[in-house]
Amino acid sequence: METNNRYEKGTQVMEELFSQEVQSGMRHIQEISPDFWDMIVSFGFGDLYGRNALTLVQREYITLTTLLTQGAFDQLKVHIHASLRIGMTQEEIIELIIQCAGYVGFPKAVQAMGIAGEIFKTYEK
Amino acid sequence: METNNRYEKGTQVMEELFSQEVQSGMRHIQEISPDFWDMIVSFGFGDLYGRNALTLVQREYITLTTLLTQGAFDQLKVHIHASLRIGMTQEEIIELIIQCAGYVGFPKAVQAMGIAGEIFKTYEK
Amino acid sequence: METNNRYEKGTQVMEELFSQEVQSGMRHIQEISPDFWDMIVSFGFGDLYGRNALTLVQREYITLTTLLTQGAFDQLKVHIHASLRIGMTQEEIIELIIQCAGYVGFPKAVQAMGIAGEIFKTYEK
Amino acid sequence: METNNRYEKGTQVMEELFSQEVQSGMRHIQEISPDFWDMIVSFGFGDLYGRNALTLVQREYITLTTLLTQGAFDQLKVHIHASLRIGMTQEEIIELIIQCAGYVGFPKAVQAMGIAGEIFKTYEK
Amino acid sequence: METNNRYEKGTQVMEELFSQEVQSGMRHIQEISPDFWDMIVSFGFGDLYGRNALTLVQREYITLTTLLTQGAFDQLKVHIHASLRIGMTQEEIIELIIQCAGYVGFPKAVQAMGIAGEIFKTYEK
Amino acid sequence: METNNRYEKGTQVMEELFSQEVQSGMRHIQEISPDFWDMIVSFGFGDLYGRNALTLVQREYITLTTLLTQGAFDQLKVHIHASLRIGMTQEEIIELIIQCAGYVGFPKAVQAMGIAGEIFKTYEK
Repeated sequence: METNNRYEKGTQVMEELFSQEVQSGMRHIQEISPDFWDMIVSFGFGDLYGRNALTLVQREYITLTTLLTQGAFDQLKVHIHASLRIGMTQEEIIELIIQCAGYVGFPKAVQAMGIAGEIFKTYEK
Repeated sequence: METNNRYEKGTQVMEELFSQEVQSGMRHIQEISPDFWDMIVSFGFGDLYGRNALTLVQREYITLTTLLTQGAFDQLKVHIHASLRIGMTQEEIIELIIQCAGYVGFPKAVQAMGIAGEIFKTYEK
Repeated sequence: METNNRYEKGTQVMEELFSQEVQSGMRHIQEISPDFWDMIVSFGFGDLYGRNALTLVQREYITLTTLLTQGAFDQLKVHIHASLRIGMTQEEIIELIIQCAGYVGFPKAVQAMGIAGEIFKTYEK
Repeated sequence: METNNRYEKGTQVMEELFSQEVQSGMRHIQEISPDFWDMIVSFGFGDLYGRNALTLVQREYITLTTLLTQGAFDQLKVHIHASLRIGMTQEEIIELIIQCAGYVGFPKAVQAMGIAGEIFKTYEK
Repeated sequence: METNNRYEKGTQVMEELFSQEVQSGMRHIQEISPDFWDMIVSFGFGDLYGRNALTLVQREYITLTTLLTQGAFDQLKVHIHASLRIGMTQEEIIELIIQCAGYVGFPKAVQAMGIAGEIFKTYEK
Repeated sequence: METNNRYEKGTQVMEELFSQEVQSGMRHIQEISPDFWDMIVSFGFGDLYGRNALTLVQREYITLTTLLTQGAFDQLKVHIHASLRIGMTQEEIIELIIQCAGYVGFPKAVQAMGIAGEIFKTYEK
């Protein structure tokens, strides 16, 4: 069944990107609207992230940049964790934020850098 | 001399990214405000693009995404040309736009795809 | 007196939309700038919401959508309460958020859905 | 077959919303990226617009508002035509734009009103 | 009569800011929606610009900056003309755009600078 | 040495704008990325704010407006403090926010006014 495949593929992508803790944090959406949850998994992660043409790291370059640009800092947090999980280095994330400064201005870049710094600390001993 | 180095490095990056035609199109800014032009070259291309931690292709992933997200379609045009010039494929650009659809919505992604399509045609026989 | 009519009409609209609690929460603006408060009531609620061509529910469709699109989540909260108060159903609000996902992307839609879910809980026993 | 159903439902919605002329104008996307076209039809129009909980007119209230708010004026044009086609009146559209002025400011509202006026003229004898 | 005073004050402000040519260009809004036109004049120019606490030049600093930041370049054009008309210098406008570059990024600042340059040319012999 | 001059000039501007407390709050950026910190000081405050063509008060008109327009309320807080420190009055700040209401809509203006009110209180006995 086609729909199940989309949902399953989305679930697999989410397993790669997010820790169990993050995933259960997302689950409150499922209680409010099971249909919306289905779209997030099947379309957002299945149809989009599940495509082969780019690696997950390349996709996170895109995701981190668009979230920073639109000022969606709560989701940026989630995806900085995801980026580290799939192998981006702290240096790459810092560098991405610096590159953004020239394109979106310092206020959003500074805020993103502060968030990244907080997250990096939690990975230290 | 430090300042000259920043400006020179920026000039080198611009040579890699932009054709002579695009570069002369940008020069009208220099006539309006030589100081602003200096900032674009020294800070924008020298300080930011000139850093070693990311490749130019990685930087264009960031640039294309932020321009699409903020709806800066004139500059997007310039950077789609730049991306192709430094070795990104048409497929990669299409894929980047598709990934953005889930993060910024279809209106901006559709507009970007239309622009990309127009540019791709000019590279065909 | 014309001005008073605009202010009075605005006050009536606010009575319909907002609980006493919400209204007193808004009053801190009046202390900071009585003139600005007068504009909010006379122009925002009197001149705009007070027009006959649309119902309050139709106006809240517009208000919820624009607030979600611009990421003004604090005001979105206030207007989800208002929407329920004037007769929109929880299902309609969920549906509006889902429709927005395609136009503004998932990050803002997910954040709005989370906020809506929190509010819906407070209306349960 | 599930996927076909999503695509077919999307096609039906597009028939209701858009004239043949508008639909063929959209088809250039299909040539650039058949996959992206499929997402627009199956997800955008099938999954979102194809849901029963809201009428098409209610959905266009949302669409017009989000496009105006994000300054996507090319798509706004397309959806003002669509709104008139499915039965919204010119007065309703004017009223929606006026309500938006208070929420997004006059610049975008004035631009939208100018666009609406141009379109309304084409419907006169 | 109060309303008339607001409209009259707005008309006076518009006379100071805009040439006859610009003012008649704005009048198409009045044909589409006389009520919206009244709001623009009475609220936008009467209530806001008509206040005494700031000079028109100080208000144009605010207006130019917000228009550049939100990418409302058509209105930016109108207000660059207005700014020059009420006594801002070309150097001040260039400087304002440069300051914005750090806060909104180069793409919007470059676009604004190009627009300013075009306008400045029309004031030369 | 040129670079040092840019950094020193930036440091001087920051001394004028920000209290010691605010400045140390900003220093966490330096720990995360010394290079980014150098750009903020040398480019943001040295190259931009350090130019002679506008006064610091004129620059804060621009900064407050762009921060309000882009919804960067955390940085708005910092710059309302800075504006008061360099001699803007509370009335000027209120007036700037009122002027913005017509250009960006009430939601962001109301939020900014609330923030300003909170800050003004801390300056009272």
